[in-house]
Amino acid sequence: MEALIACDIGGTQIRVATFDATNGKIIQQKRIPTQASGEKAEDRLLGLIAELWPAEGHVRAIGAAAPGFVDPESGVIFFSPNIHGWNGMPLRATIEDRFGVPVFVGNDANLAALGEWRFGAGRGFHHVLYLTISTGIGGGVVINDRLLQGARGLAAEVGHITVEPNGPLCGCGKRGHLEAVASGTGIANFVAEKLAGGATSPLLKGPHPSAKEISAAASQGDALSIEAIRRAGTYIGHALADFLHMVNPSIVILGGGVSHSGELLFTPIRAAMEERVISSEYTRDLQIVPAQLGDDCGLMGALALAKMDDHI
Amino acid sequence: MEALIACDIGGTQIRVATFDATNGKIIQQKRIPTQASGEKAEDRLLGLIAELWPAEGHVRAIGAAAPGFVDPESGVIFFSPNIHGWNGMPLRATIEDRFGVPVFVGNDANLAALGEWRFGAGRGFHHVLYLTISTGIGGGVVINDRLLQGARGLAAEVGHITVEPNGPLCGCGKRGHLEAVASGTGIANFVAEKLAGGATSPLLKGPHPSAKEISAAASQGDALSIEAIRRAGTYIGHALADFLHMVNPSIVILGGGVSHSGELLFTPIRAAMEERVISSEYTRDLQIVPAQLGDDCGLMGALALAKMDDHI
Repeated sequence: MEALIACDIGGTQIRVATFDATNGKIIQQKRIPTQASGEKAEDRLLGLIAELWPAEGHVRAIGAAAPGFVDPESGVIFFSPNIHGWNGMPLRATIEDRFGVPVFVGNDANLAALGEWRFGAGRGFHHVLYLTISTGIGGGVVINDRLLQGARGLAAEVGHITVEPNGPLCGCGKRGHLEAVASGTGIANFVAEKLAGGATSPLLKGPHPSAKEISAAASQGDALSIEAIRRAGTYIGHALADFLHMVNPSIVILGGGVSHSGELLFTPIRAAMEERVISSEYTRDLQIVPAQLGDDCGLMGALALAKMDDHI
Repeated sequence: MEALIACDIGGTQIRVATFDATNGKIIQQKRIPTQASGEKAEDRLLGLIAELWPAEGHVRAIGAAAPGFVDPESGVIFFSPNIHGWNGMPLRATIEDRFGVPVFVGNDANLAALGEWRFGAGRGFHHVLYLTISTGIGGGVVINDRLLQGARGLAAEVGHITVEPNGPLCGCGKRGHLEAVASGTGIANFVAEKLAGGATSPLLKGPHPSAKEISAAASQGDALSIEAIRRAGTYIGHALADFLHMVNPSIVILGGGVSHSGELLFTPIRAAMEERVISSEYTRDLQIVPAQLGDDCGLMGALALAKMDDHI
């Protein structure tokens, strides 16, 4: 049997799965914590791959999704804010040296886009814009069935487009980015500020409700929470108009926890996008849909990458 | 001899040139006005191609750069603000039906990017962002040696990214776009407003100096003109940061009349871009250079398209 191995490496956990290369079915998978005392994350990753290595047949390729800035050509992670000691980590070489099969690595949000295009909501589309809206905002772009990575793999940092020049500080240290106003963090900050300013909400508890609590309260009709979700949606719609002008996708896929707010979020997104777009030609036949792969998006993106290295 | 024909179709004039397909040298060329009474623009174009058709040998392909929204697959111009009667014009079919050779069409600013990548300032680079800053602002993107066109050929409308949400109206009818504040029109509007508000300038004449006059005055030290150019450069730099995050180019090429202001414009562009970019990894080794092809960019882009249809 010919197998493919996919790795989804996060700041909290590493997930590795083996797939039958012929029919794409999963054979086995396992998750472990990324960090453990006295052990390097790369050694834990290599150990997990070895543990899942098929006893028979051979492995055709390994795909790996990693957080941070990943150079897709060299396979080096040159900036890794979430994994200790991984700045400059030659991930591709490290895995190839150990196992002797072709290895392909990419940024996790970029690969999630590739996963949705190949296995999820984007199947059959050739031009895909994917945003994941959770604690932060990331994303990826597939154009002409190819992942848009740019010169150094840094493309599609969709969370860091400026939507409010004098807006709040973003996690990256700059001001007014989409992530600062429309991520789960941005939504929670907005509500906390409103509550501190005297706004009240019968459904929210404490001065710092989480984005998940706000989303739940909004779905029960809480006015402040609805305002917070709508506001985020409006900013996302404005950013989408800019992205449409830049890459002209045929489908927009929204993933991440915040996207679970459904029409409460999607309605203002569509309205704000239509308001800002310079021609209805951009939105004619454009699909805006929820992601389908959920937590599997990184893993399935790594599998897609291992399957089709000509698409990187 | 094998020939290629390139057409640069503008609102004011049509330019057609024949090239030796083997060595890329120009054989002959001619410009005519696009509009003439009693004649359709497409008939004028077809007539000019026929006039320049090589007497011997054969024509391998024709490339055409046209203004407006051009579907690269169908070759239909589905929105053409500058040429009367061309909304819905099937340009590819019209030329192919007459001459019976392969025809490739594209948006003029997109093809200018392709021209700079193939023959101009972008030679040897694989990831090119091109902006042309004149009356309006247009552009194009080459990623992995391929033109980024998107689902319907509408990608890289770089002039219509929002940089000042409550800013002045853009020519497209929306508010605060890069084109509204940083094009020649935006620069001239800014100065006219300042003059109307009581600002004075010893070098500018009349209440509505042109962008060209402002640029000339700036190069002679006129404070108001320098402020206007710097302001435009700052907005361009902010937009570039967004574009870098989106497509991660290795070179940025700036063309169009406004770009002739040189360091007066480029210095604030670089400063504003560096200020906004989320990581110096985006600007490490990034080139920001003036365009090289000048008025030939559309024609050379059409030639590049005719030469290498696999890059569309």
